[in-house]
Amino acid sequence: MQLAIDKARACGMASVAVRNSTHYGIAGYYPLMAVRSGMIGLTCTNARPSVAPTFSIHPMLGTNPLAFGAPTDEENRPFLFDAATSIVQRGKYEVLEREGKLGLAGWMIDRSGNDVKDPGAVLEGLEAGLMALLPLGGAGESHGGHKGYGLAAMVEILSSALQGGAFLYGLIGFDEKGNRRPYCVGHFFMAIDIEHFTPLEEFKKTAGAIMRQLRSAPKVPGHGRIFVAGEKEAESEKLVRERGVPVNSALQKDLKFMQAELGLTRPQLPF
Amino acid sequence: MQLAIDKARACGMASVAVRNSTHYGIAGYYPLMAVRSGMIGLTCTNARPSVAPTFSIHPMLGTNPLAFGAPTDEENRPFLFDAATSIVQRGKYEVLEREGKLGLAGWMIDRSGNDVKDPGAVLEGLEAGLMALLPLGGAGESHGGHKGYGLAAMVEILSSALQGGAFLYGLIGFDEKGNRRPYCVGHFFMAIDIEHFTPLEEFKKTAGAIMRQLRSAPKVPGHGRIFVAGEKEAESEKLVRERGVPVNSALQKDLKFMQAELGLTRPQLPF
Repeated sequence: MQLAIDKARACGMASVAVRNSTHYGIAGYYPLMAVRSGMIGLTCTNARPSVAPTFSIHPMLGTNPLAFGAPTDEENRPFLFDAATSIVQRGKYEVLEREGKLGLAGWMIDRSGNDVKDPGAVLEGLEAGLMALLPLGGAGESHGGHKGYGLAAMVEILSSALQGGAFLYGLIGFDEKGNRRPYCVGHFFMAIDIEHFTPLEEFKKTAGAIMRQLRSAPKVPGHGRIFVAGEKEAESEKLVRERGVPVNSALQKDLKFMQAELGLTRPQLPF
Repeated sequence: MQLAIDKARACGMASVAVRNSTHYGIAGYYPLMAVRSGMIGLTCTNARPSVAPTFSIHPMLGTNPLAFGAPTDEENRPFLFDAATSIVQRGKYEVLEREGKLGLAGWMIDRSGNDVKDPGAVLEGLEAGLMALLPLGGAGESHGGHKGYGLAAMVEILSSALQGGAFLYGLIGFDEKGNRRPYCVGHFFMAIDIEHFTPLEEFKKTAGAIMRQLRSAPKVPGHGRIFVAGEKEAESEKLVRERGVPVNSALQKDLKFMQAELGLTRPQLPF
């Protein structure tokens, strides 16, 4: 991303393709680098197959996140979109399992195309390639599942074809003989230097006004607040920095168990 | 888009922001210009408010389509994603009304946040700003509606802030006193010259292999075929060019009525 930013400063905009990588962490981290440089930032990455194309039951695409950031005139409040192109991700089921809760219908399917809600079954099914997450928009085409699938395929192309890298099944982490091999994930980074279009302050005013107008939209009865992308996360970060990281009771139990098993006396767990 | 293509040829990639425009037709038309030049093409546009942000009941955003095209090694079969960031659009209800059919639950809401299915009511409600289309992912956050909303907001920013143009409510086509004024729609166009990254033929091979692997995915029982973005439209175009444009019976009736009303004897309608 830094290379894209440096090139964008000279040329107006630039993009960089990365090959032979692995999980690159929080996608939204990279657009924020561009935002701090007064630029628009965008990134996407492919990932291990876990998402079924529309009308398929098979995990072919990764959760293929797309992240986009733009500066606004609100201090420390950029617009930051960072989302998998699937409805939910594997990590959601890990949290649900710890909390003893079920997933929702319409999030993922088994080999017959039926809903699966039990997070334990889901995590095993995903690992074995016997279940698949659904793209944003859900199963079939009636509610736009083909659009989520199309976005995931767009991310797959941007993340692999510009650098001759691995894609789809090539990212399962095993070769034809079943031996483990590197994942060879690919990424795409892009930066647009706003000053090449319009004064940065003007851009920030417009982007900020869009955020404020969206927040002030009339609400569904019973709902207290309209958010814009990145706002929940920014507020959550502020809270966590002030009060510490919340640890749910199931994870507390795991930590205590591991501490006892390993005979560790420090750190003193606060629970 | 031609300007973006010309600049991308020189610099590797380029983008262009357009102001004071109106409906620009089929979004996917522009990426195809880039594809024919051996490039990746992307465009998006804002539009008259018709889509509610997550947890809002009010039409704030346009259907804000995003279109992306990339060349493949299959002749006349580029990857072409072209989709509104809402689940459906106004035009869907115009077709349903002609066919005497209902919309589906989860596509749009009235001011109480309830589903509306009757296309006549929907078309009136949209016109009056009393109903709103839902973003891709649907109402609330449970199935990723905030992602569709975030994508629509991303398109809004790209389409307006780079050129100091109108946005959201500014696109209703009326001034504060209720007088008609131009819509002032904004667009964003981008082209990436693939040869600046990798030989075009290599890119095409990878993109084509992605399409073929996706098409060959195991299917949901009872479903015959997996499509990739742009494929249905390309096949439909081929069929229409061979056999003509299908005209449903309600539209046939309209055409006959208008022909009689205006006393036209030509063209001879084939129905």
